[in-house]
Amino acid sequence: MSTRTIKLTIAYDGTDFFGWQRQASERTVQAVLEDALAPIEGQRVVITGAGRTDAGVHADGQVASVSLTATIGVLELQRALNATLPPDVRVCDVAEVRADFNARFDARLKAYRYAIWCGDVLPPRHRRYAWHLPQALDVTAMQEAAALLIGRHDFAAFQAAGSDVQTTVREVTVSKVDQSSAATIDYEISGTGFLRHMVRNIVGTLVDVGRGRVDLTAMLDILSSRDRARASATAPPHGLTLVRVDY
Amino acid sequence: MSTRTIKLTIAYDGTDFFGWQRQASERTVQAVLEDALAPIEGQRVVITGAGRTDAGVHADGQVASVSLTATIGVLELQRALNATLPPDVRVCDVAEVRADFNARFDARLKAYRYAIWCGDVLPPRHRRYAWHLPQALDVTAMQEAAALLIGRHDFAAFQAAGSDVQTTVREVTVSKVDQSSAATIDYEISGTGFLRHMVRNIVGTLVDVGRGRVDLTAMLDILSSRDRARASATAPPHGLTLVRVDY
Repeated sequence: MSTRTIKLTIAYDGTDFFGWQRQASERTVQAVLEDALAPIEGQRVVITGAGRTDAGVHADGQVASVSLTATIGVLELQRALNATLPPDVRVCDVAEVRADFNARFDARLKAYRYAIWCGDVLPPRHRRYAWHLPQALDVTAMQEAAALLIGRHDFAAFQAAGSDVQTTVREVTVSKVDQSSAATIDYEISGTGFLRHMVRNIVGTLVDVGRGRVDLTAMLDILSSRDRARASATAPPHGLTLVRVDY
Repeated sequence: MSTRTIKLTIAYDGTDFFGWQRQASERTVQAVLEDALAPIEGQRVVITGAGRTDAGVHADGQVASVSLTATIGVLELQRALNATLPPDVRVCDVAEVRADFNARFDARLKAYRYAIWCGDVLPPRHRRYAWHLPQALDVTAMQEAAALLIGRHDFAAFQAAGSDVQTTVREVTVSKVDQSSAATIDYEISGTGFLRHMVRNIVGTLVDVGRGRVDLTAMLDILSSRDRARASATAPPHGLTLVRVDY
């Protein structure tokens, strides 16, 4: 039987998932997808995600790769998956790719968005998708601080405590704060790779800049310190969306 | 004890509510609000909503009136309510109004929005707020048909079957279809008052115009027929939002 490598592009509302990665007894996106693929393939399959999103984090364009022997066409595969998947996870695209494609190791760039709602009252339809901070934030200061992160830096100060990776150097290509309405602040960040909790730790620190607790000099000190204890608290997961993975 | 009349402006995600109106054993917005007001007032209170939204219908700006003897300030009342209400209902504004203000009978204009997603795959975060129609719709025809409804008409053809009201004549001031992205179609309608299921029945018929099943002449025939059986099926509730009530 010949094997094909399939690339899946996936959107999900992370609210009711315990993150991406399969776990023994929790509802996860990987498990739900693998369970939907199994009857099509006729046996259990294992998919590889571009990255492991935390519990509560959303995706507009997560990517996963999987080897299949089933002869189903890509459009039929997409339809069959969406017909059985729960509505909080959707397969947006299915493509056949070169045999050695790996969604994790071949990822060239990831783009994330973090949504903050800084009005007094959080509109109910934003409650799953935005961090509610009922206070005025200095958006100009946040924009200046965000720009300082662009480039190749050692982001050790922004990785989850207790992480163990070979190198904490990453390249950030986009780091930008936008205010689209009085209460709506969005942070966009793109880069070649991200450390665990890196985006949420950066957002926590940018918010402290917006509150006037951290100035630009302190922001640079935190970055160069490589010390997690210097950065601010981790922003909550539900404001974060994995927007896109480029290959 | 002196009594004040209070006007509440309320937003809710209707997904997990059995509509606005209090019912014996279902979770409704009115019941949740009255239950949150009772400990502040020291006794049960009854609130009057501008209109009864159906199960699954959302609101950005529903309005309710209530008589209170409690001496709490309006800002404190808003904070106290939002501190105890579940996150799918929020009090956006509280104001003291003239003693005889009645949210239902004094409403001068109501504005609704109906969201349609006509892409192949429904993004998970739209699933509670948009009607998914995975097909191309003729938006220009829908725009022309929507414009025909502006003005003072007998809307009997678009009221829920079995309704019993004194008059089915209503005045529509805005009736407009917008396409903000390839897959995003929004319908806005404002008027002095609405019959039961009127907006959802209009949307069902406009969608049949978009599908090419109903032309503009037929649309006018349906309106003038005053016959519910001539209009299309009722659009599902979850695409509908009560945007605003004017007094």
